[in-house]
Amino acid sequence: MVPGRSLQRHASPIRQASLREHNLALVLRQVATAGTRSGPALAGRYPPSRADIAAATGLTRSTVSALVDDLIAGRLVLEVAPAPKAGAGRPSVGLALDPRGPAGLGLEVNVDYLAACVVDLSGAVRHREVRHADQRPRTPEQVLATLDELTISAAAAAAGQNLQLAGIALAVPGLVQDQTVRLAPNLGWRDIEVPASIGGISVTVDNEANLAALGELLTNPHAGRNFIYVSGEIGIGAGVVLDGEIVAGSRGFSGEIGHVAVQPNGPACRCGAFGCLEQYAGLEAIIRAAGIASIQDQILPAVRTGGAPLDIIAGARAGNRKVLGALDGAGTALGIVLAGMINFIDVDTVILGGIYTQLEPWLRIHIARELGERVLAAEWAPVGIRASVLAEEAAVVGAAASVIRTVWDHPAAWIPNR
Amino acid sequence: MVPGRSLQRHASPIRQASLREHNLALVLRQVATAGTRSGPALAGRYPPSRADIAAATGLTRSTVSALVDDLIAGRLVLEVAPAPKAGAGRPSVGLALDPRGPAGLGLEVNVDYLAACVVDLSGAVRHREVRHADQRPRTPEQVLATLDELTISAAAAAAGQNLQLAGIALAVPGLVQDQTVRLAPNLGWRDIEVPASIGGISVTVDNEANLAALGELLTNPHAGRNFIYVSGEIGIGAGVVLDGEIVAGSRGFSGEIGHVAVQPNGPACRCGAFGCLEQYAGLEAIIRAAGIASIQDQILPAVRTGGAPLDIIAGARAGNRKVLGALDGAGTALGIVLAGMINFIDVDTVILGGIYTQLEPWLRIHIARELGERVLAAEWAPVGIRASVLAEEAAVVGAAASVIRTVWDHPAAWIPNR
Repeated sequence: MVPGRSLQRHASPIRQASLREHNLALVLRQVATAGTRSGPALAGRYPPSRADIAAATGLTRSTVSALVDDLIAGRLVLEVAPAPKAGAGRPSVGLALDPRGPAGLGLEVNVDYLAACVVDLSGAVRHREVRHADQRPRTPEQVLATLDELTISAAAAAAGQNLQLAGIALAVPGLVQDQTVRLAPNLGWRDIEVPASIGGISVTVDNEANLAALGELLTNPHAGRNFIYVSGEIGIGAGVVLDGEIVAGSRGFSGEIGHVAVQPNGPACRCGAFGCLEQYAGLEAIIRAAGIASIQDQILPAVRTGGAPLDIIAGARAGNRKVLGALDGAGTALGIVLAGMINFIDVDTVILGGIYTQLEPWLRIHIARELGERVLAAEWAPVGIRASVLAEEAAVVGAAASVIRTVWDHPAAWIPNR
Repeated sequence: MVPGRSLQRHASPIRQASLREHNLALVLRQVATAGTRSGPALAGRYPPSRADIAAATGLTRSTVSALVDDLIAGRLVLEVAPAPKAGAGRPSVGLALDPRGPAGLGLEVNVDYLAACVVDLSGAVRHREVRHADQRPRTPEQVLATLDELTISAAAAAAGQNLQLAGIALAVPGLVQDQTVRLAPNLGWRDIEVPASIGGISVTVDNEANLAALGELLTNPHAGRNFIYVSGEIGIGAGVVLDGEIVAGSRGFSGEIGHVAVQPNGPACRCGAFGCLEQYAGLEAIIRAAGIASIQDQILPAVRTGGAPLDIIAGARAGNRKVLGALDGAGTALGIVLAGMINFIDVDTVILGGIYTQLEPWLRIHIARELGERVLAAEWAPVGIRASVLAEEAAVVGAAASVIRTVWDHPAAWIPNR
């Protein structure tokens, strides 16, 4: 027996330095969650005082005060006007996340646009820029050059607001391994290396559905801690969140739900296999089944709104039978595949993103039917179906938030030495 | 934005008491993993000395010595003869897991047998008992009464070897919620509550495939830290391990791979849905496709060996075309479903358990073909297919090991107050 593998959580000793780091993150978390739905019950009201944080964490008041001073010095926390107090006594100073400190830059490459977004420590979007254009005829070098431009523009916008970019996360629609995009079928990318930094700021790269799921985790009050985020575009991606953490998989290749078989002998897929979900519920499949003439026109941004083609939404609203049939087919296929995934890993929520965000009113009934019929535990464990909150911004906001999350997890790095 | 949800790891403060608990578990882990494949490189050879552990953990020698003294007092660690030393100087005393301390009792209910197994702290099986009998005609009360008998017998065997039972874990083939078996279709159980203790020892209950996966995690050197364990019997269950942890799912209902659709319009399944994997690769489906006469005879223990019916194995060895065709069908269906799951969560290994353990030589080629064709990342991320090491003992050994794991994770509970 090899017990060590089950004890990973005890893999490193805790010494005084990491004790302080842990408690800094703990206090920062208290400041961030006070008064929010998922935050623990604090004695006071938002914004919390040092005493509230001591009460909620069990740390002593003097320890909390020292940690808060450090967080203030690192521009992670700031003092704000105290909340009005009902009882007697002087109200104590409140604490909030500092919106002038570190910020995250999210970048996104997608088939028909490039996007950038700056998010501050409190999660507020402070800058956004989208450049619509079909990226498929462009070389990866041309795309990366535009990302440089978006970064320069975002860095200038951040500096103008006294924000310091803590890092860049790039979202791409494909398989990512370390700093390399192994395969992005709908962009035609294969083994494209992403630079380790842009303008001196370090860059990480990840699958767009993973980052979008992270964006939902951090912003969608209905997301909970266990969900599948499924995002429809020309391709279909999924981000899996279990116990509040993104499931990246053993080699980082999770979430390829678009290539899960609906009918193993179904139509040939671009990936070489047969009957993949993408062939039933991808944007092109829906447009084809809806009998709408030009696929090329539909996927260009000019005719899209909130991710879904206007003709599809208009057709569905008007009760067009072919359009409704196309959405029945897509929803049924999504439901069959999602039922399989939920039998396998048991999540309580499905979040519909990308083009599915706006199509949710029509897709939901078909997905719910398949889940009800096929999920073994459906009777005891119903599954909620929700539209994405961030919609087409999910991946780029999630990318920026992933940078912020590393600041939340490791605040000590931002605290000046004394 | 709700940052708190991403910071669960910082949910509680670390004080001196939990610091000691953490480091006790860390030292215990070092003793357990020294000299094993997955253990960190220690300065010395197995068994490690106090100095080796100090070097490997970065803790001071005096801290390690105090922690080791505690672990010895708690009968978790003992001193053993030192390893022979090549260089000069007196060899130092070695440390090993104490085989006389706490032990775990695993119990298992399956369709055609009940089993018990005692595992000591070092992972060695110290007692086992299996009672073969078809459990389906028996009431849950009768089955639970036999589990009481098995516990009395195991407790006596443990006491006779100076072992103290730290807890009981019960493995059942079905959906488990808290202490209740919600549904075990092949046993005919529904909403059966399991007692919180048997003979004064506390009982936890879990799905057998989850516990079997844990058993593989702890004993199979080829399992790694990310795998799907899939176990064939009349039903098919899966245990999912990601990053060295069992995925229980949001409500504990993960692993129901037997009810993932292969063909959404395929044959009706016992669960009410259509085309479930169980209808293609369950024991009854294989026997039916192989043209072997009596299903009832085949599933009785007398004609089974290592989980798989003798006629199937004999037929496959003899090259019987119908039997090979049945295994082709089962392997192909398994491959289609596993490809979907791996596209979704990206694990690097599939472990075949239950009847699949002995059928692995025939199933492997079909599973591998489907994975190669259908897993999008197959080119960069090959998936290994392995037979279970524990075979039909996986669930009951895994159950006992789950008790031992709680001791490893929380050794402080075993250390006497001074």
